[in-house]
Amino acid sequence: MNKDKRTEISEIGEFGLIDRIHQGVKIKHASTVKGIGDDAAVIGEGKRLMVVTTDMLLEGVHFDLAYTPLKHLGFKAVAVNISDIAAMNAVPRQITVSVALSNRFPVEAVDELYEGINLAADHYQVDLVGGDTTASRSGLIISVTAVGEVEKEKISFRSGAKINDIICATGDLGAALMGLQVLEREKQVFLSNPEMQPDLEKYTYITGRQLRPDARMDIVHELRDLEIVPTSMMDISDGLASELFHISKASGVGVMIYEDKLPIDKQTYDTAVEFDLDPITCVLNGGEDYELLFTIRQEDFKKLEKHPDIHFIGHVTKAEEGLFLVTKSGTAVPLQAQGWKHF
Amino acid sequence: MNKDKRTEISEIGEFGLIDRIHQGVKIKHASTVKGIGDDAAVIGEGKRLMVVTTDMLLEGVHFDLAYTPLKHLGFKAVAVNISDIAAMNAVPRQITVSVALSNRFPVEAVDELYEGINLAADHYQVDLVGGDTTASRSGLIISVTAVGEVEKEKISFRSGAKINDIICATGDLGAALMGLQVLEREKQVFLSNPEMQPDLEKYTYITGRQLRPDARMDIVHELRDLEIVPTSMMDISDGLASELFHISKASGVGVMIYEDKLPIDKQTYDTAVEFDLDPITCVLNGGEDYELLFTIRQEDFKKLEKHPDIHFIGHVTKAEEGLFLVTKSGTAVPLQAQGWKHF
Repeated sequence: MNKDKRTEISEIGEFGLIDRIHQGVKIKHASTVKGIGDDAAVIGEGKRLMVVTTDMLLEGVHFDLAYTPLKHLGFKAVAVNISDIAAMNAVPRQITVSVALSNRFPVEAVDELYEGINLAADHYQVDLVGGDTTASRSGLIISVTAVGEVEKEKISFRSGAKINDIICATGDLGAALMGLQVLEREKQVFLSNPEMQPDLEKYTYITGRQLRPDARMDIVHELRDLEIVPTSMMDISDGLASELFHISKASGVGVMIYEDKLPIDKQTYDTAVEFDLDPITCVLNGGEDYELLFTIRQEDFKKLEKHPDIHFIGHVTKAEEGLFLVTKSGTAVPLQAQGWKHF
Repeated sequence: MNKDKRTEISEIGEFGLIDRIHQGVKIKHASTVKGIGDDAAVIGEGKRLMVVTTDMLLEGVHFDLAYTPLKHLGFKAVAVNISDIAAMNAVPRQITVSVALSNRFPVEAVDELYEGINLAADHYQVDLVGGDTTASRSGLIISVTAVGEVEKEKISFRSGAKINDIICATGDLGAALMGLQVLEREKQVFLSNPEMQPDLEKYTYITGRQLRPDARMDIVHELRDLEIVPTSMMDISDGLASELFHISKASGVGVMIYEDKLPIDKQTYDTAVEFDLDPITCVLNGGEDYELLFTIRQEDFKKLEKHPDIHFIGHVTKAEEGLFLVTKSGTAVPLQAQGWKHF
């Protein structure tokens, strides 16, 4: 390392860092169909390809054990990886789980964590095939790798969106972010007055979305049944706006989305207002929803039109038209990507 | 979690914990050929199968940045996973790398770490296809997953050793442990008197073995060229004795090894003596050598007899005969497994 130069990671940001890492990579094998730069890597040579993805959750960064039950955490650690498999339009098959934990955790805590992991393995029909258990000097760390499979002609990359495609989002957005705000507030209330019982009853939907998200494998299976292959797809983990920038960049297109089409749950909306936050900003920039964002050809619209949980939020435009949100009043405002802020 | 009961992890140990986790696992897919319990999982359905393994390295547990250059660390994080692929007699193809780092690391440090990762990717001919970069509140964490492939009839599990097979070990053992002892001593010397320069020149081989181990893919390729499929194989990461217990348990056999056949480098030997340690104990229980331990049929012996880097350390016996070391004086003493002591 050149001791004379010190560039802070915050100067180049997460995506700058990923680009920098990506630049040093040389692909050697024909079996590497897709490397860094999508929700999962795609490997193999035949008609059926494998997808591989990995994600690490760290205590104090991605979760707070003050309000996160270990069973939910185990489930979530699996679900966030399954969500990346779903985002490739693939079906998950196996997972490995590495856990680092300090001796403040008794065996019973490990049991509880794995109860959630096994529950998720059943729910998503995947086999837990390996991993690693090690000591940690600091907090709990869970690193999951998921392996899935997909027929070559059914993969959805981020890069396939075409002009006039319809932009779809599943479920509702912003709930996990508002759930986190509530959990953090109640934690502070508890810390300043341990006799106060946290009042979470009105917030069960949004706190559930934060603590125990569900990957949308149901949508992947429904799309298969309807014989729809999304022209592009990714999961919404960093926030809708940020993901739209990824699709736009990877596909070389612009996007136009409509405020009145954005899906938001009433509890999310009400809680945002309670917290003096703009609900639409929560929908655009809230992370961890683990819903799917995808684009379909116009001719596939009829097949999905009446789907209760798929929302048609806009359409794909030419790259030079940029990324815009049309507000309820009809004004087109440029989208801003906030994305990930851990550093 | 039942609040009434608290079992310390140290009470059941690493292997007890792994057994406990293993018990909760149900395998659902025919494509899961081998789950938990070998160096890597084996998945797939055709003639060519995939192997997948994952390992996490944590600062303060697995490495100390006081004496570990980041470039070596990056290389090692990959090499230890490749070693698990080699242990299945498979060839590695792809890796994913997740890194968590705090803001005390500048971008230049990340560059240095990835320089080592990319060097290893070239050395082992694997593609870096994905991963994750995240913030850490504490130390540096690196989690690597490696994917490899192998023809179905060439896989070596831990479970295939047969009575009268010859037990082989590659390279030399105990060096990484003694390298660690030297590095730790020099660190203490430096901490108590920062003007003292560490004197590592006599120890370059053993410190190199600790800081930058090399997975034995060369041996895997040579065995293929010689058309030898080891009846069982694993890598030596926790210490020879511990690994022999794994082979013994998985294969349902006993082992007899000979002290005078155990491979030890002169520098390892001399350093053990300097530290008042029994060199043979270092060979039996030193971890992180990342050599291969395997068994071959008697008829394959001729093909390997003159190999300069494969040592014939003993033979496989009946399960009821147990695990024994025959000392230089001809006494058979029961082997003791120490294994992993991170908790």
